[in-house]
Amino acid sequence: MTLLKYLREEVMEANLELVRRGLVLYTFGNASGISRDEGLIAIKPSGVPYEKLKPENMVVTDLLGRVIDGDLRPSSDLATHLVLYEYFPTIGGVAHTHSEFATAWAQAMRPIPCFGTTHADYFSGQVPVTDSLSGEEIQGEYEKNTGMAICRAVAKDDGDKVPAVLVAGHGPFTWGATASEAAHNAVILESIARMAYHTVAIARDTFPIAKQLHDKHFLRRHGKKAYYGQSK
Amino acid sequence: MTLLKYLREEVMEANLELVRRGLVLYTFGNASGISRDEGLIAIKPSGVPYEKLKPENMVVTDLLGRVIDGDLRPSSDLATHLVLYEYFPTIGGVAHTHSEFATAWAQAMRPIPCFGTTHADYFSGQVPVTDSLSGEEIQGEYEKNTGMAICRAVAKDDGDKVPAVLVAGHGPFTWGATASEAAHNAVILESIARMAYHTVAIARDTFPIAKQLHDKHFLRRHGKKAYYGQSK
Amino acid sequence: MTLLKYLREEVMEANLELVRRGLVLYTFGNASGISRDEGLIAIKPSGVPYEKLKPENMVVTDLLGRVIDGDLRPSSDLATHLVLYEYFPTIGGVAHTHSEFATAWAQAMRPIPCFGTTHADYFSGQVPVTDSLSGEEIQGEYEKNTGMAICRAVAKDDGDKVPAVLVAGHGPFTWGATASEAAHNAVILESIARMAYHTVAIARDTFPIAKQLHDKHFLRRHGKKAYYGQSK
Amino acid sequence: MTLLKYLREEVMEANLELVRRGLVLYTFGNASGISRDEGLIAIKPSGVPYEKLKPENMVVTDLLGRVIDGDLRPSSDLATHLVLYEYFPTIGGVAHTHSEFATAWAQAMRPIPCFGTTHADYFSGQVPVTDSLSGEEIQGEYEKNTGMAICRAVAKDDGDKVPAVLVAGHGPFTWGATASEAAHNAVILESIARMAYHTVAIARDTFPIAKQLHDKHFLRRHGKKAYYGQSK
Repeated sequence: MTLLKYLREEVMEANLELVRRGLVLYTFGNASGISRDEGLIAIKPSGVPYEKLKPENMVVTDLLGRVIDGDLRPSSDLATHLVLYEYFPTIGGVAHTHSEFATAWAQAMRPIPCFGTTHADYFSGQVPVTDSLSGEEIQGEYEKNTGMAICRAVAKDDGDKVPAVLVAGHGPFTWGATASEAAHNAVILESIARMAYHTVAIARDTFPIAKQLHDKHFLRRHGKKAYYGQSK
Repeated sequence: MTLLKYLREEVMEANLELVRRGLVLYTFGNASGISRDEGLIAIKPSGVPYEKLKPENMVVTDLLGRVIDGDLRPSSDLATHLVLYEYFPTIGGVAHTHSEFATAWAQAMRPIPCFGTTHADYFSGQVPVTDSLSGEEIQGEYEKNTGMAICRAVAKDDGDKVPAVLVAGHGPFTWGATASEAAHNAVILESIARMAYHTVAIARDTFPIAKQLHDKHFLRRHGKKAYYGQSK
Repeated sequence: MTLLKYLREEVMEANLELVRRGLVLYTFGNASGISRDEGLIAIKPSGVPYEKLKPENMVVTDLLGRVIDGDLRPSSDLATHLVLYEYFPTIGGVAHTHSEFATAWAQAMRPIPCFGTTHADYFSGQVPVTDSLSGEEIQGEYEKNTGMAICRAVAKDDGDKVPAVLVAGHGPFTWGATASEAAHNAVILESIARMAYHTVAIARDTFPIAKQLHDKHFLRRHGKKAYYGQSK
Repeated sequence: MTLLKYLREEVMEANLELVRRGLVLYTFGNASGISRDEGLIAIKPSGVPYEKLKPENMVVTDLLGRVIDGDLRPSSDLATHLVLYEYFPTIGGVAHTHSEFATAWAQAMRPIPCFGTTHADYFSGQVPVTDSLSGEEIQGEYEKNTGMAICRAVAKDDGDKVPAVLVAGHGPFTWGATASEAAHNAVILESIARMAYHTVAIARDTFPIAKQLHDKHFLRRHGKKAYYGQSK
């Protein structure tokens, strides 16, 4: 149960980071984390105001989404999270928001081009947008099918390189090695979505930065020879 | 008098929510609530700064707008509220703001299209805009006629499904089962107004989401088989 | 000296209102107040950070701008204020900011059209923009000539009806019955500048509201038969 | 060591100013300061969250960027700072951010025109944008080459007159007589970037203000006959 306690606290903290950074309104959004060894997932309960959330309110489920521990219903987007955990074997956390500018790009159904090094520091390539779901997909297992649409938009091997996607007409999902990193990526995504929005407003014909500059910045942080930060 | 006390406190709280969420400036905006059993309405007084408001300052009127209890003048928009309470028999609260982006759509006299699931979660269809008032309507019972214009823009039966309208050249009115829900809807409206604004700035030719997706999200929250949140 | 103390405190408070509402950055902006009976003006000193300001730092001058009391230099825009006090005989305060959206309209050299009732509640007509100063006017008594350009843009009798102007390529000046009202009008001006900006972004071809609606709202607050607020 | 202590505290404070003004997110951005007499530079460490920073964490290097004192790695942009200190012999501080609007202009690869006196008060001319780096420059000494691109964009003698540049596809660098002034200029730059953005959104065809007005405002603050502020 120590593990559960730790996982819940980490997931709780990731959800609160979304609030602190202004990414969610009322009960919008949700973050989850997974313990792959135990086969357990902790996720925010559905529709509970953030100011009332406590770590013990995080709902714990198995990998099929069955509630293992907790009194509340899990987020209605749980099924989307499950698909992502299965598809990307190395990720440890998922976050979903309706943050203003990332959602605007998702609603406009346009991928976010990489216009600068801020984007390149975190995302190796444009942030893709999913196809729209078909009527059948919407009326069937909607949340699961949302996850499947994400998988079609991001190659299985690119999970670490492009840890974000825009669900068409809906909003962003991000992920990372932990719930905390997933939330962190949601914050960064909103920031680069804002800057890309303003960039095209200044000059519609702006083109993405050169691949060499893009790779330089991504690898300066994430490659084998990374030299950003204090780790060795 | 216990009822009056409760109604005033709820209306006071709804007005303060508009302040907390940055929807009003100085004395802008107003929220009201109704007790249909007693035939009483409580509403913010006209032109009093929010920081000086106390529950007992809420003005209580009958359904014709005559002051029953309270020392202050009611909001100058009271007559608009009265029309809405009469027209939509199930609503319990009304809110009016000049929030920045909803007002911009109202000034541009364009309905807000449903570009995404955030909108669909709350409003079943576009947020409509009223016709402009005629010279006669302006010089006659202006505030009442504003209410009548709202009624022409929203079908009587749609009050629960589209609890918001943009008054052309003026700003938004929202409503709900309670004063608190009316204020909540005002906050959501401003958020989806912002996102719709940014969406068309990214891609002028964005079209609304498919009706199936729209219905899915609205009913996931509001239909008989709703499964969002913790209620059963 | 009691009068001086009161005037300084009021002017200090008006300057702080500009800070609280996010209209000024660092030492930008200035507000002043006049006592016409005594022939004295109090104004913010030049280039002093707001967090260090105290009422006694407000510089007191006569109507020609000569320092009567105070150890600091008055705002470099004092000469502009002096022209306005002379031109509009009923005003008691002046405020100047570089607030973001009002300044953008001033830089674009476009008057702010009245697109809605928020604008009409405060300004009876569009907010005008001055002509650009000539080379001679810039190299001569620049700040005084800025005031003269404002006078050319607003009819002498319209001071109470349109208490704001945009100085081309510079920023807004507002005024009012007191320093406090001048600052209040600066806050309102920024708000309507934002909403007008967003309105034209949604629909370039938006036209101003009808004169009847404009007059209705302005007179609802400012006319002889005003019924907004609590005064009689 | 008293000097080192003072330099570190000043650099620490300049970095915190970037946080207070909303110019940086997480570990983004960096500010440095130089003591030319001692041949020492203090700079923010790489990738350390601002809330954990203490003055003693500032890394002290010599003019070649070799760490003289401190346990952490310096900012990965140190080499860019070094080039600027060598090129502009009178500057005492450098700041780099990814602030939202200045970065958008950098990403759009457009210089910021001087549309108003707010800009003219601080920058004598447009804020230039560098050329894009070549593939060789990116794969070689990237950060040093970024500095060289800045030098090509700003004449050596213009360091005091235009203390800011936009690195194409990256973001702004600013400088000043001290680290504190460099950070101050970063804040001002973001403000004028916002206002210029809004100006062109209102009117695409806005042209820069006349040179006479530009010079008047710049010299009112910075010329030999400056009369803004309290200094003599």
